[in-house]
Amino acid sequence: MADPLAKQGFFKGPDHTNCPISDLLARLGDKWSVLVIVTLAGSPDHRARFSDLMRNVTGISQRMLTTTLRHLERDGILTRRVFPEVPPRVEYTLTELGLGLLGPVRALVEWIEQRWPDIERSRADYDTRIDAIS
Amino acid sequence: MADPLAKQGFFKGPDHTNCPISDLLARLGDKWSVLVIVTLAGSPDHRARFSDLMRNVTGISQRMLTTTLRHLERDGILTRRVFPEVPPRVEYTLTELGLGLLGPVRALVEWIEQRWPDIERSRADYDTRIDAIS
Repeated sequence: MADPLAKQGFFKGPDHTNCPISDLLARLGDKWSVLVIVTLAGSPDHRARFSDLMRNVTGISQRMLTTTLRHLERDGILTRRVFPEVPPRVEYTLTELGLGLLGPVRALVEWIEQRWPDIERSRADYDTRIDAIS
Repeated sequence: MADPLAKQGFFKGPDHTNCPISDLLARLGDKWSVLVIVTLAGSPDHRARFSDLMRNVTGISQRMLTTTLRHLERDGILTRRVFPEVPPRVEYTLTELGLGLLGPVRALVEWIEQRWPDIERSRADYDTRIDAIS
């Protein structure tokens, strides 16, 4: 039985360089994007200020947060709004597109969370086997 | 309303370096892993030989396929079996864990496929705006 996704030819073509899947998976593979999306999703009205994100996305640098937000804005996952106050207030809000992404991302994150012990066990087994033959 | 995932503290801690989510998302962000998983899923008995994968995962190099398969084997997503023939036959089979991953991965891939035009439109708009102010 052929896989429906394989049949759709979405992965096909002589070159995967411009493949949308690779492109967006790479974005998600960047953990900071996922952390920013999840943090916004958990904020009132799916909206947060730069400083809120800095505080909640533990470990992110100011520069990395700026880059991540710019990428997500460009992809239409969030919007950036500047309020002309002193100092200027900048707010980031998840778009309808960003909220839609949340469902599949959550499902994947939950799966990873649930099966993580199995993956860790498998890695330990593998490393033992490899050590034994090398 | 707080996000249930945020509340679980799965993303928390002083350091995300060892975060399982980042770890596995990075693996998925590597497009070859996803392509190999989807190809195996579409093969009879979720099983294929190295040469089948080379043929079906368009554009992958022999070396990259070897690396990808080794990582996926280590994670317990697939098994590798060598049959003592001449030349030796090597078969890769999706495990129960790998099959389970397929559901959430498919959902994500389908979402990307469906919303890709919106993402492209957003990128074009963004680039136009950026050009206008620079």
